[in-house]
Amino acid sequence: MTVQKKKAVVLLSGGMDSSVVLAQAISHGFEVFALTFRYGQRHQVEIDAACKQTAAFPAARHTVFDLNLSQFGGSALTTDMDVPKNVESSDIPVTYVPARNTVFLSVALSYAEAIGARDIFIGVSSVDYSGYPDCRPAFIEAFEQVANLGTKAADGGERFRIHAPLIRLTKEETVQLGNRLNVNFANTHTCYDPAPNGTPCGECDSCRLRIKGFTEAGLIDPAMTSSKE
Amino acid sequence: MTVQKKKAVVLLSGGMDSSVVLAQAISHGFEVFALTFRYGQRHQVEIDAACKQTAAFPAARHTVFDLNLSQFGGSALTTDMDVPKNVESSDIPVTYVPARNTVFLSVALSYAEAIGARDIFIGVSSVDYSGYPDCRPAFIEAFEQVANLGTKAADGGERFRIHAPLIRLTKEETVQLGNRLNVNFANTHTCYDPAPNGTPCGECDSCRLRIKGFTEAGLIDPAMTSSKE
Repeated sequence: MTVQKKKAVVLLSGGMDSSVVLAQAISHGFEVFALTFRYGQRHQVEIDAACKQTAAFPAARHTVFDLNLSQFGGSALTTDMDVPKNVESSDIPVTYVPARNTVFLSVALSYAEAIGARDIFIGVSSVDYSGYPDCRPAFIEAFEQVANLGTKAADGGERFRIHAPLIRLTKEETVQLGNRLNVNFANTHTCYDPAPNGTPCGECDSCRLRIKGFTEAGLIDPAMTSSKE
Repeated sequence: MTVQKKKAVVLLSGGMDSSVVLAQAISHGFEVFALTFRYGQRHQVEIDAACKQTAAFPAARHTVFDLNLSQFGGSALTTDMDVPKNVESSDIPVTYVPARNTVFLSVALSYAEAIGARDIFIGVSSVDYSGYPDCRPAFIEAFEQVANLGTKAADGGERFRIHAPLIRLTKEETVQLGNRLNVNFANTHTCYDPAPNGTPCGECDSCRLRIKGFTEAGLIDPAMTSSKE
């Protein structure tokens, strides 16, 4: 008898965190439908990294979804605003993209409902993070509530679950988890402001958190290493 | 002194309901940013109708946003499934598009936050409606909660408000409201399965609700009349 695997939609940016989540969803036995957004971000290198991650799992399906949030402006990730470097601040930085995770989770929900998946994975963290409000537990819980009120499947008694397995992990713990799951970190991309050849800057918020994670975990980051050769 | 108008994003499908909501937001003094989705619906006539509505209000801005939900399938509005005709049923019909209003509200939220609007209008009704779960008050309230947890603006103490002014109105009341607001109903499009020239079928759920509304309001529907000439 073949046991049918449960389907899951996994939001995959190509960064370190979502790549760890992809590996975790697969290790938990889900049939994975990865979803990456071409949302008007300045750097195609992110999408290339996402494709390299799913290429490592032949059973996973992968959709790149077009949706141009850059037409609204409002973020250093979608416009030509400067990305802050080496800044210590408790303010939400200009790299925040208005309501990005709400948009991404909504499209993931539409996809999930259409294919019969009831599980959605997202790699947000609220510990070592940039302070983005759409990465916090209360937001994830509120979105799960929306999913369970606004869909035909939920109306029929099924329940959607938004999994955010990294939400209470430090970057160190995320690196260790990814290491145990054999995530190929060399093929992940985290930097907000890479060089044209994709080399990470090492100074933006996102690089700094990643470096902190690898340093605290006592591991070498192959993406950072190769970039410096 | 010039008083700055408050900005609002109005979801505008080109149907009767959202056209009434557009007129209402304008009559309430908002500076309106209308948002229409080219989401893979089978009928371009809807988008044309939306453009005709905003053309009547020169001060309103209008964005048509591309986002192809049809690639996920799962609905008679985005695939070649048959649209049900003259069906009495309490089930949610196959014209339901998975999580459509969640997706639309999310993009509206991103747009609103980027331009500094805190008010979003949507023309859903939970009285004379097709039973779609993403048209009910509990869903709208849950989405408002998401907006007020998952955005930088809300984090800074501002509040988003999702206005659904038709949510407890019958179709008769919506027709009467639109009539008072001088909505040009001839330029609205409601039908799920129009003829190639845009003529409404008169038999799908959406046409039947519209016909009921005009009949009960004692008014003639110019869109239906012209289609029969």
